[in-house]
Amino acid sequence: MNIISLTVWTLENNCFTVYTALIVCFVGFTIFHKNKLEAHYRSLAEKKFNKTGAKRIPDREFPDDGDDDPELLVPAIPEDTPHIPYKPIKRTDDEILERSREYYELMAQRRTVRSFSKEPIPEEILKNIIKTAGTSPSGAHTEPWTFVVVQDPDVKSAIRNIVEEEEDLNYNKRMSRQWVTDLKPFGTKPEKPYLSDAPALLLVFRQAYSWRDDGKKRMHYYNEISTAIATGFLLAAIQYCGLASLTSTPLNCNSRLRDLLSRPVNERLELLLPVGRPHEDATVPDIQRKPLQEIMVKI
Amino acid sequence: MNIISLTVWTLENNCFTVYTALIVCFVGFTIFHKNKLEAHYRSLAEKKFNKTGAKRIPDREFPDDGDDDPELLVPAIPEDTPHIPYKPIKRTDDEILERSREYYELMAQRRTVRSFSKEPIPEEILKNIIKTAGTSPSGAHTEPWTFVVVQDPDVKSAIRNIVEEEEDLNYNKRMSRQWVTDLKPFGTKPEKPYLSDAPALLLVFRQAYSWRDDGKKRMHYYNEISTAIATGFLLAAIQYCGLASLTSTPLNCNSRLRDLLSRPVNERLELLLPVGRPHEDATVPDIQRKPLQEIMVKI
Repeated sequence: MNIISLTVWTLENNCFTVYTALIVCFVGFTIFHKNKLEAHYRSLAEKKFNKTGAKRIPDREFPDDGDDDPELLVPAIPEDTPHIPYKPIKRTDDEILERSREYYELMAQRRTVRSFSKEPIPEEILKNIIKTAGTSPSGAHTEPWTFVVVQDPDVKSAIRNIVEEEEDLNYNKRMSRQWVTDLKPFGTKPEKPYLSDAPALLLVFRQAYSWRDDGKKRMHYYNEISTAIATGFLLAAIQYCGLASLTSTPLNCNSRLRDLLSRPVNERLELLLPVGRPHEDATVPDIQRKPLQEIMVKI
Repeated sequence: MNIISLTVWTLENNCFTVYTALIVCFVGFTIFHKNKLEAHYRSLAEKKFNKTGAKRIPDREFPDDGDDDPELLVPAIPEDTPHIPYKPIKRTDDEILERSREYYELMAQRRTVRSFSKEPIPEEILKNIIKTAGTSPSGAHTEPWTFVVVQDPDVKSAIRNIVEEEEDLNYNKRMSRQWVTDLKPFGTKPEKPYLSDAPALLLVFRQAYSWRDDGKKRMHYYNEISTAIATGFLLAAIQYCGLASLTSTPLNCNSRLRDLLSRPVNERLELLLPVGRPHEDATVPDIQRKPLQEIMVKI
């Protein structure tokens, strides 16, 4: 019976049964495909959300950590880990005050630089900087970070190509006009010569999870915030030793750069930092930081 | 005509028209309420996502940045901001290497401490630490952070009550069993005596947006990651000067603490850091950090 004869038959007969069957099918389909519908609407909503240019694409690789089978509840580090005394150097109030002032003054000289000298950096320095980032705290001591150091000119050039292609789309299609306007005074643009000029690129990946010896996934709680805090230590180390950097979050470059650098699926690119000495002719926008009273509230 | 007589009438008559009307109504309703359905399914999906205990509740206060009306497209800082030369201190490779080593060694001594001496800290030190955090980079230089310093014992006690109440629910109801298991070796628990003992609590709020002079919302791009990076600078400053801290992300405490501290709706609590000297008898779990080869990849 084709659709036309069905329609004719429907019009000619009492169609109660046919329509009821159709409705039952429709309702059944909706219930049966609830998850797919959910995913569809969620993706629609996210697309709309991302259009504000205000939030990165949410991490879709975040796994459920399973059914909490008590047999498998093994802590990531041994439960009977001993606790030992902690006796750091004791300093007087005066010393602490003097050191806090000295450190502030050094950090206040840091600026984001967009043009770098090509002079190479000894590898030992890069290692110390990354070791410093690795001293950062992390949720349940999961240390959910990988620092990829790129010095090979061909790989730097491949990274630059990917970032420039995506940035061109970001600036012209993906970012809101307000966002592009807000970036104008900083002189940022889709072209990124510093990605080939700077002697080293540090790509900071966060690990959403890892795998335990028994093959079960080990969740990395607060991996995003932990990795960003570690990046704070990294940038502070770069400034302290006398180098410069540029803090960038390459929008929509995650999967292409992850593939290029052969990073595993549990990792996601959080930041890309060129590191080196500022170019002789480097300039920075003449902007100020907020005064203390605008960022501190005393209670 | 009530529903029974409608049903009887439907059964007695050719019901084509009635069913067609019902279907048209249903389809119309679905299209008309598309946005509500989207929101409903999105919220369902988020609830499921949050159950993994792996991600904070998403920021629901994130506004759309409007319709990009070209008349209103004013950059947050003047478009003609001059660019000036940047000439930081030049250091030799040897100096940079030596400083990078010295800084790593100092940062490597940092540990998260759960028991603090009650000895007060001079306010000038707290100010320098917060000023240092304020030197951190941020998306489009929005500086999306507020540091609330609490030294008043009554307010510290009120904060402790809120955190302990919520943590009790977190540990017993909200967090996955695996998460609770993973935290066991660290000796964390719902009771938080350090919130009354430490001489100062630093509450780090991130601002999702602010208001421009013309009343329009100014988006704070990457406010979460920027505020976490600034917290890295804050923790590094605390370590550098000779104090100690505990990095905590009080789960589900945002609205109660925001209300207690009268913070505006554009702010969201990101971290809570007690600051002070470690207690004489402070202990730390005897755990190690990952070796360099596990966190660094060279290309």
